[in-house]
Amino acid sequence: MVLKGKMVIGQSGGPTAVINQSLVGAILTARGQDAITGILGARHGLAGIMNEDFVDLTTQSVEQLEQVANTPAAALGSVRLKPGAAECEKVFEVFRKNDVRYFFYIGGNDSAETAYIISEMAKDANYDFCTMHIPKTIDNDLKVTDHCPGFASAARFVALAFMGDDRDNYALSGVKINVVMGRHAGFLTAASALARQADGDGPHLIYLPERVFDVEQFVVDVRRVVGEYGRCVVAVSEGVMDGEGNPIASSGERDSHGNIQLSGTGALGDTLSAHVKGAFKGENLRVRADTFGYLQRSYPTIVSTVDAREAREVGEMAANHAVSTGENGSVAIRRVSNEPYASEYFITPLSSVAKETTAVPDACISAECNDVTTNWLDYIRPLVGDLPVIGRL
Amino acid sequence: MVLKGKMVIGQSGGPTAVINQSLVGAILTARGQDAITGILGARHGLAGIMNEDFVDLTTQSVEQLEQVANTPAAALGSVRLKPGAAECEKVFEVFRKNDVRYFFYIGGNDSAETAYIISEMAKDANYDFCTMHIPKTIDNDLKVTDHCPGFASAARFVALAFMGDDRDNYALSGVKINVVMGRHAGFLTAASALARQADGDGPHLIYLPERVFDVEQFVVDVRRVVGEYGRCVVAVSEGVMDGEGNPIASSGERDSHGNIQLSGTGALGDTLSAHVKGAFKGENLRVRADTFGYLQRSYPTIVSTVDAREAREVGEMAANHAVSTGENGSVAIRRVSNEPYASEYFITPLSSVAKETTAVPDACISAECNDVTTNWLDYIRPLVGDLPVIGRL
Repeated sequence: MVLKGKMVIGQSGGPTAVINQSLVGAILTARGQDAITGILGARHGLAGIMNEDFVDLTTQSVEQLEQVANTPAAALGSVRLKPGAAECEKVFEVFRKNDVRYFFYIGGNDSAETAYIISEMAKDANYDFCTMHIPKTIDNDLKVTDHCPGFASAARFVALAFMGDDRDNYALSGVKINVVMGRHAGFLTAASALARQADGDGPHLIYLPERVFDVEQFVVDVRRVVGEYGRCVVAVSEGVMDGEGNPIASSGERDSHGNIQLSGTGALGDTLSAHVKGAFKGENLRVRADTFGYLQRSYPTIVSTVDAREAREVGEMAANHAVSTGENGSVAIRRVSNEPYASEYFITPLSSVAKETTAVPDACISAECNDVTTNWLDYIRPLVGDLPVIGRL
Repeated sequence: MVLKGKMVIGQSGGPTAVINQSLVGAILTARGQDAITGILGARHGLAGIMNEDFVDLTTQSVEQLEQVANTPAAALGSVRLKPGAAECEKVFEVFRKNDVRYFFYIGGNDSAETAYIISEMAKDANYDFCTMHIPKTIDNDLKVTDHCPGFASAARFVALAFMGDDRDNYALSGVKINVVMGRHAGFLTAASALARQADGDGPHLIYLPERVFDVEQFVVDVRRVVGEYGRCVVAVSEGVMDGEGNPIASSGERDSHGNIQLSGTGALGDTLSAHVKGAFKGENLRVRADTFGYLQRSYPTIVSTVDAREAREVGEMAANHAVSTGENGSVAIRRVSNEPYASEYFITPLSSVAKETTAVPDACISAECNDVTTNWLDYIRPLVGDLPVIGRL
C-alpha cells in the first residue's frame, strides 16, 4: 500500500563517520517522491520529535547536502533514549498532528528496537504508517546484515592508528597497550590486525570481549612477545571482562539503555599498564597505554570508500522501499563476492535486528584467545580498503 | 674545509610523521657526493653507534627510500639517551675506527645538545669532523627556527581530531575534555583552534602549559560555556601545572633526560573529568575525556603537505651544507611570506638550539588564559594546510 504524508527522519546512538551519508541518501531519494509531502529532520532523534524540533529538509541545495554527507557525526544531532509508554504516546501525538506517515530512524540495535516499538504502536492504533530502520554502528554488531555501515571507517581509523603506532613502538621499544571501542563485540579491536604487513609487526596480541580476559595470562603473553621481539603492541577491547563477567576497569556510570560507561576514560589502559609494570618491575621496560576513544567514530578524512558508498545506498534503499511498498523494515547488506568485493541490499523485519546483537564468530578468533584468524582478515580487508605500504630499512 | 670520509646518520627522541622525509632527504643528497665515502644508518641513534649497529644506506632503491619517507616514525629506530663522558668516548672510538667524518643527528633540543657535545669533543681532540643537527619535533619548541618539521603534521592530526570530535559532541552533548601532547610548550594544543569554522564550534576552551592551570577557574569556565552552548569541548595540554609548578596529574615516571612521563596514561583526562563531574553533580551532564596519545605523532595519511616538503628539504640542506663547508650547524626555517606561504632555510650554530626550548608567545594566548588569539591562527594556518569544510543542517 502506498502511503501519502510527511516523512520524519532522525539519527540515534553513537555517531559514525558516514551516518550522514545515509541521511543524505534517504533525503535525496525521498525528495523526488509524490507520496512524500514533506521531509522533517528531527533534532536529536526522539527528543526532537517529542519537542517538535524539526528541520525542513526540502530546502537545502544538493551541494550543502553533499557537504553534510562528507562530515562525520550526526548532522541532525543524536540521542540515547529508550522511550517508555508515555514517550511513545507523545511521539504518536506529534506524528498524527503533522500527518507523518513515514518514520526513518538511523541507528544501531537500540534504535531498531525503538523503531520496532513505534511500528507496533502504529499497528495497534490502526494508523497507516511505515517505519524504516537504517543501520549504522561502528561496533558492527547488528544481526542479519553482513556488516554495518560506519564500521569499516572506524576499522580503517583503528588499522591506520596501529600501523603508525607499531612503527612508533618499533622506534622506541617497550610495551604499548591500545584500548579500542567495542563493548560486547570485538570487531573493531580485531580490525587492528590489518596493520600487520611483515613478520614481527604489531599488534602482537589482540584481546576481544568475546573471550574471558585473564590478567595473569595477559602478562604471560606479553612476556613471551617481549622475549621474541623486544617489544609488544597490544590491542584490547574496552569491554573485556574477567571470568565472573566483571569489567577489568570502568567508572561505573550507566546510560538510559543500562550500558556501563567504558569510553571517555583511560581507566582500562592505565590498569593494564600497571599490571605489566608490576610484572616487569626492575627490568627497565617502557610501558604505555593509549585509549583511542571517540576519535574512532568521528575522525574526518580517513573514511573507507566502500563504507561511504554503502552508507549512502542503504539510505537510498530505505526511502525507495518505503515509498514503493509502505512496509516496515530494516535495510541489510549481503556480500555477493569478496574478490572483487560486491554487495547488495535487502529488507529484513525490524524485529530481526532489534535489541539483540552479534559478536565476532568463533572461526575468527585464535585458539589461544589472543589473536584473530585468516577468516577474519578475509572478511574485513575488502571493507576497509587499501592501506599505505610501510617503508623499512 | 671539505672533509672526506664516511657519514653516520641517526634519529633520536620522539618520532614524527615526517622524520623519515628528513632521513631520506639527507641520504639521497649525500649519495651523490665524492666527499662521502659511505653512509651508515645508526639503529636507535647513539645506542646503535656505540654498538656499531649500522645499516648500509647506499644500497636501497629510490623507490624503497620513498616508501620510507612516506612512513611515520623513525625507520632507523630512535633512542632517548643523554650521553655521559664514557658514552661519548665510545662514540668517538667508533667514529675514528670507521673513518666517520660526518655525523647527522635528526631530533629535538635534547638531540641538538647531544650533537653539540660530540662536536665539542671532536674539536678538543683535533679530529676533523662535521656534526649536523636536523630539526624535528611535534612540540615545535626549538629555538631560532620559525617552526619545526614534524609539528605541522601533528597539528593537522589534532585539528582534524577536534573537528570530528566537536561534531560528535554537538550530536551527543556534554563536556568533552581532550588531552593533547606538549610537555612545556602548548603549540600542539593551540592547534586545536583550527577546528573552528563557525560560531559555537569547539574547542570552546584551550589551556596551554604556558599559563598556570587553576582547577577552580577551569570549572568556572566550563560552566559558562555549558550555559551558553549546552555543551563544552576542552583542549588541554598534558603539561599543565598548578601555581606551585606541580603537574595536575602524572604517573611520576621519568626518562634519562629527567622528563616526567605525561603521555601514555589517561590520568590527567580522568582527573579533570572527575573535577567537572563533581562540580555538576546532580545536573545529569555527560562528561568524557580522551587522551590523544601517541597517535598524534605517528598517524599515517594525514601528513601536512608543507611539513612533508620542508622535512625533506632540511635533510637535503644539512647534507649540502656539510659537504660544501665542513662546518657544524643546525638547519632552521625562516618564513618569507605568509600568503602565499613561502619559507627558506639557513644554518644556525648547534649551541643556539641545544638544550633550551621556546614556548607559545604571549601574543598568541588570550588574556583570559583559556584560548588563543588571531596571531596564533595566522601563524599556524599555512603550515597545517586546507582542512575539510564542515557540512551543517
